Amino acid sequence: MDAKTPAESRTTLTDLVLPSETNPLNNLFGGELLARMDRAASIAARRHSRRIVVTASVNHVAFNKAVPLGSVVTVEAAVSRAFKSSMEIFIDVWVEDRESGQRSKANEAIYTFVAVDETGAPIKVPPLQPETDLEKERFAAALRRKQLSLVLAGKLKPNEATELKALFE
Amino acid sequence: MDAKTPAESRTTLTDLVLPSETNPLNNLFGGELLARMDRAASIAARRHSRRIVVTASVNHVAFNKAVPLGSVVTVEAAVSRAFKSSMEIFIDVWVEDRESGQRSKANEAIYTFVAVDETGAPIKVPPLQPETDLEKERFAAALRRKQLSLVLAGKLKPNEATELKALFE
Amino acid sequence: MDAKTPAESRTTLTDLVLPSETNPLNNLFGGELLARMDRAASIAARRHSRRIVVTASVNHVAFNKAVPLGSVVTVEAAVSRAFKSSMEIFIDVWVEDRESGQRSKANEAIYTFVAVDETGAPIKVPPLQPETDLEKERFAAALRRKQLSLVLAGKLKPNEATELKALFE
Amino acid sequence: MDAKTPAESRTTLTDLVLPSETNPLNNLFGGELLARMDRAASIAARRHSRRIVVTASVNHVAFNKAVPLGSVVTVEAAVSRAFKSSMEIFIDVWVEDRESGQRSKANEAIYTFVAVDETGAPIKVPPLQPETDLEKERFAAALRRKQLSLVLAGKLKPNEATELKALFE
Amino acid sequence: MDAKTPAESRTTLTDLVLPSETNPLNNLFGGELLARMDRAASIAARRHSRRIVVTASVNHVAFNKAVPLGSVVTVEAAVSRAFKSSMEIFIDVWVEDRESGQRSKANEAIYTFVAVDETGAPIKVPPLQPETDLEKERFAAALRRKQLSLVLAGKLKPNEATELKALFE
Amino acid sequence: MDAKTPAESRTTLTDLVLPSETNPLNNLFGGELLARMDRAASIAARRHSRRIVVTASVNHVAFNKAVPLGSVVTVEAAVSRAFKSSMEIFIDVWVEDRESGQRSKANEAIYTFVAVDETGAPIKVPPLQPETDLEKERFAAALRRKQLSLVLAGKLKPNEATELKALFE
Repeated sequence: MDAKTPAESRTTLTDLVLPSETNPLNNLFGGELLARMDRAASIAARRHSRRIVVTASVNHVAFNKAVPLGSVVTVEAAVSRAFKSSMEIFIDVWVEDRESGQRSKANEAIYTFVAVDETGAPIKVPPLQPETDLEKERFAAALRRKQLSLVLAGKLKPNEATELKALFE
Repeated sequence: MDAKTPAESRTTLTDLVLPSETNPLNNLFGGELLARMDRAASIAARRHSRRIVVTASVNHVAFNKAVPLGSVVTVEAAVSRAFKSSMEIFIDVWVEDRESGQRSKANEAIYTFVAVDETGAPIKVPPLQPETDLEKERFAAALRRKQLSLVLAGKLKPNEATELKALFE
Repeated sequence: MDAKTPAESRTTLTDLVLPSETNPLNNLFGGELLARMDRAASIAARRHSRRIVVTASVNHVAFNKAVPLGSVVTVEAAVSRAFKSSMEIFIDVWVEDRESGQRSKANEAIYTFVAVDETGAPIKVPPLQPETDLEKERFAAALRRKQLSLVLAGKLKPNEATELKALFE
Repeated sequence: MDAKTPAESRTTLTDLVLPSETNPLNNLFGGELLARMDRAASIAARRHSRRIVVTASVNHVAFNKAVPLGSVVTVEAAVSRAFKSSMEIFIDVWVEDRESGQRSKANEAIYTFVAVDETGAPIKVPPLQPETDLEKERFAAALRRKQLSLVLAGKLKPNEATELKALFE
Repeated sequence: MDAKTPAESRTTLTDLVLPSETNPLNNLFGGELLARMDRAASIAARRHSRRIVVTASVNHVAFNKAVPLGSVVTVEAAVSRAFKSSMEIFIDVWVEDRESGQRSKANEAIYTFVAVDETGAPIKVPPLQPETDLEKERFAAALRRKQLSLVLAGKLKPNEATELKALFE
Repeated sequence: MDAKTPAESRTTLTDLVLPSETNPLNNLFGGELLARMDRAASIAARRHSRRIVVTASVNHVAFNKAVPLGSVVTVEAAVSRAFKSSMEIFIDVWVEDRESGQRSKANEAIYTFVAVDETGAPIKVPPLQPETDLEKERFAAALRRKQLSLVLAGKLKPNEATELKALFE
């Protein structure tokens, strides 16, 4: 299979924060943002694999910045690394101020999707070829994240997670 | 006020067709697509005006192509012409085939929004400066559409609608 | 097929404006009203044709009057003219003041639906027989609108659109 | 206060059964129908009282007939009797067959609403003047239902519920 | 079939009151609460019968206490008596004050569900074996309610409803 | 402030998987499950703190098991450790087979919430006192997770994360 670039899967979902999606402080519910990111990420994974895809895991997501009612929110998702049948998707979330038009970063998140056939069995996906510096950096970090995830799941011994272990030395 | 280009207001809303949005033929409901286009268009109008905006009218919209359940739909909206306080928004809708990844045009629509202040009163917006050929063509056609709309509303006599009348000669 | 009257397809959808359907000015979203009108119009088209129906187009819709949160909105749709397999649906929207109970006209819209069989292929529908003066007037105007729509789509030469052309003379 | 007729509060809500509202047998969820009836009934209560109204109780509702996905459902609500600040609303639900166009009765339900002021305190409503035979019959039965409801709540001794007691003799 | 206890079907649905579910007084809509109770009750009926279940009827429901926006609402449902193929479900609704953490009773409701096979035909369910005093009391009252429901439906003569009739003597 | 136990914040949200929440394989969308878990976790955080709470982060979540349409899903959330103003919430997700009634573990997830005052500023919360063995184990692991999260955010040097570092030695 030919490699694909992150640009080929990049997905942009710009939408409003509606009244039904806000918490008692009138900000976007964390859970609603998680759901929007899941939809954008699933489209990126489909664009890379041309297959049915299902959410396999969500990495650590930090909600650093409240997103108020009426905001314009842009969720941008692209594949950051492809493994055998799984793909790591890196998601950037931007909020836009109505008056100044200034965009500021509201969140980052990392989801993993698996490509499956009609019966739900995993199926091979094309490799990823990063192009920009940011894409290369995320590509490299993806391997450490995969090791961490295997360690946490008890499927890899910590001292075999070479890239990850190096962080603590 | 400085003129803005269509690129400055361009808004992309890529999302899935979910089961709750389909009709008995398992295609996206016309009404649901109208609502998505309204949200994307309102964001484009906000980006151009940096104001609260409200839907003023929807021009003729043709639904030429069914959009099946599970499709990836991209709604792309940008201001095509600005008048005193109103803005015409041109919307292109694309559907993407999961297997081939091919995008095909599913719809075009034109919405008009008005910028208002906190009391709901109309307020001036910047002019539009089209750049590409397609943007220039849509900019020119917007004037004929405005005349047609005034004629249909009985606010302009047909024989005073110079650009429009020329079509029938 | 026997002709049917507009009364036979008339559909009334009276419902509240809920908090989840409002914009930052606390009025009903344009897009939400478009979706409600689509549902009412599709029922009117079904009642006339007794077939599966799909939205073919939406004519010019003007939003002249804001519809505040908590309002009672009545959408009334009826077939205004039937062509071979398509039906024009005329929709009147009324808003009701809670205290005085007074109804005022908030919008008018015209949608076109096509009747289809299980495979999605167009299928013949009964003719329409208008009864009241208003129904007859809308029936006559429907032909001019169809010509305009064909002209705008490039499927009819402007000087062949006899009824429409007469408007500009 | 002048009496009002049931015709003055009659409310019609005709809408489709959408895929998101169905149970595993592909029929309308009981809970969704209860919510639609509540909205229609609240509008009827508002039309009668011109006040804010809140649901006070729901009488016995029987679901005799399944309502399949894609059906056209008509909920028709009207005030059947007014007490001091409460109103009994009688609701008829009809389902329409797409092919034959035949309407059949799917449900009946009775809701009680109370009119309140801005602070939520109960406030007087106009009396009801029934006109047709059916309206008169429902008006008479409403008193027995009110007694039954007071008996069940322990606020009226069974042997003081004169109209109700007569049923068992 | 072996009898089951109410504990075996007890179902707890604790959730927030979201902005899209409130009326003009900012309290939970009666209709929305009816829908939540229907979902919890249907799960209790499934747990008792291990079958597809459909709502058969809703008994008298009183809304004694407003449930404000942002509240935590707990709906607790359990089978209170099983008949041949139908089950009475008793539902308690609690609201929780955020600051004191105190729970107070907001509603009680009784729904009846019927267990059906894949074709929708009624099918036998296990008997219920009440354990606590409250469960025994609700079990006994269920028979009177069933008689009342048959009397109101005209399927049982009032003077044959032995348990019910005793109330009025 | 007095310590509280996990039992005091434990929150159970049992609900159905509805058609509008499923992906093309007819299983619950990952994003929808993330949103349900966020609601249940926010209630647990409120019960522990008696304050307004906002989502601060979501830890690694693995979706090991598909949850089919029509399933009964139980989301159970409880505070697993409290820090100064933040609380770690441990969430267990169970799916129940309709016929056998057997419950199986579908997911585990960890969310972090922060308690805030009306202006959104962080505010102190009571400590947690674990009781069972499982609660004690989760309490201990929470500290390692907090260190990992600080390391990943660049706010703690890896070699200062004592508990975490021990894992790799």
